[in-house]
Amino acid sequence: MTSNDSLPANFAWRDDLSAEIGVTERGFVVDVEGETIPGVLWSPRPLEEITTPLPLVLMGHGGQSHKRADRMAAIGRRLARRQGFLAASIDQIDHGERGPLTDEGGDDTRYRALWQRPGLIDQSVAQWRAVTRALAALTCVDDTRIGFWGLSMGTMFGMPFVAEEPLVRAAVLGLASLTGNSVDRSGIRATFEASAPRVACPVMWVVQWDDERFDRDGSIALYNLLGSAVGNGNKRLIAFPGLHAEAPDESTVLTREFLGRELGR
Amino acid sequence: MTSNDSLPANFAWRDDLSAEIGVTERGFVVDVEGETIPGVLWSPRPLEEITTPLPLVLMGHGGQSHKRADRMAAIGRRLARRQGFLAASIDQIDHGERGPLTDEGGDDTRYRALWQRPGLIDQSVAQWRAVTRALAALTCVDDTRIGFWGLSMGTMFGMPFVAEEPLVRAAVLGLASLTGNSVDRSGIRATFEASAPRVACPVMWVVQWDDERFDRDGSIALYNLLGSAVGNGNKRLIAFPGLHAEAPDESTVLTREFLGRELGR
Repeated sequence: MTSNDSLPANFAWRDDLSAEIGVTERGFVVDVEGETIPGVLWSPRPLEEITTPLPLVLMGHGGQSHKRADRMAAIGRRLARRQGFLAASIDQIDHGERGPLTDEGGDDTRYRALWQRPGLIDQSVAQWRAVTRALAALTCVDDTRIGFWGLSMGTMFGMPFVAEEPLVRAAVLGLASLTGNSVDRSGIRATFEASAPRVACPVMWVVQWDDERFDRDGSIALYNLLGSAVGNGNKRLIAFPGLHAEAPDESTVLTREFLGRELGR
Repeated sequence: MTSNDSLPANFAWRDDLSAEIGVTERGFVVDVEGETIPGVLWSPRPLEEITTPLPLVLMGHGGQSHKRADRMAAIGRRLARRQGFLAASIDQIDHGERGPLTDEGGDDTRYRALWQRPGLIDQSVAQWRAVTRALAALTCVDDTRIGFWGLSMGTMFGMPFVAEEPLVRAAVLGLASLTGNSVDRSGIRATFEASAPRVACPVMWVVQWDDERFDRDGSIALYNLLGSAVGNGNKRLIAFPGLHAEAPDESTVLTREFLGRELGR
């Protein structure tokens, strides 16, 4: 066990969750203004054996999913095993252990209600920033090499966070748009329009070409709004055929390897 | 030296060009209906040491360039060194040793004239196919794992070839469009419209977002026309900001690794 002596005051480890070959998986909680935010940290080796701080990828799951859904866990493990990075996934507001949105898919009445809540984005950004600062303070984390990975709802909460948080040096964003059903229902368009130009780090923008929730043309328009303006614009777009939920494994490979290049030595 | 005994009748090696760490570079010529087509083959090790046939990537250079231009050589060497593949680049019609279009850039009068020549595309397709068959017959080549890499003029000549040649199992195409200056001047639109739907192999389509020669919207429209229709459509689009000639090294990395995944074991 890593000693708690040098941990941030608002941070605590939970029981070890599990480990598989080459990857350690560890629960944690961060307290932010009275709310406890649970997360999972994947690591290429036991934390007490990490003598040189490692890059960290923050992961934001999609709508009606949770921090340790199969896809999140697969990406977290691969970031650890293939890139040698740390990866942290948290339950986003009302999701996972922060219920009631604990299941993937299903009735979305409560999900729609979430997006009507005043101050939702500000609350999420504040929480993401607090989690980032707590994790960045761990001795195993290289706070000069922190990235973000979040698509769909991961981008709805993640883009305004990435726009605000200078510790994030590279971001995978997308499966989002300025137009489409999921944009209209959530009212997220104004948030995207305000935050996209202020995203300054390198971005890989992901599009599902036949996305039925986030329209393609609006997704391209949102990509165009991204700041990320070093030189020719340090951003790239990758697109695959298929519906919103049909992103192929190759999309995961390319986004992971992008973060590998940006945050690696 | 590899014995010439088992070579295709229309194929001959030339002198070794050079070698750098881990990569062998070898010249060759293929005779096609009285015309001699010169090429370069990059290999991860001396050909006589290859006991298990390797995947092969055919490479078509851009306009007013040649088979061994810096970018071609860099990609060929990396395909050999990083992927362990063979890579072959030929001088395309009127280019390189097949002059007069030997220099990159400069006056394009002769280049424009090339595209007015009747039967140009049919001639190029026939030559590409003959070169492919000659290389596929080499004992060092695994003829079940042949790919194509060609952008801009490499796609103008390459797309109709890939559409016709079943030995090509994966292709990197792009920096091309249904609209734009270079499309209008060359009259290539009809060729693209006819061949794109017949491209059946997995494709990575490359776009420079601010391409001044091949318009973005027309490039997206051409991507949409590509057959490659296994399941959801086994094609993906990658885009980077910048003009036609400003593709970043990352574009080369992603296209090379795509071929690595598609043609690797």
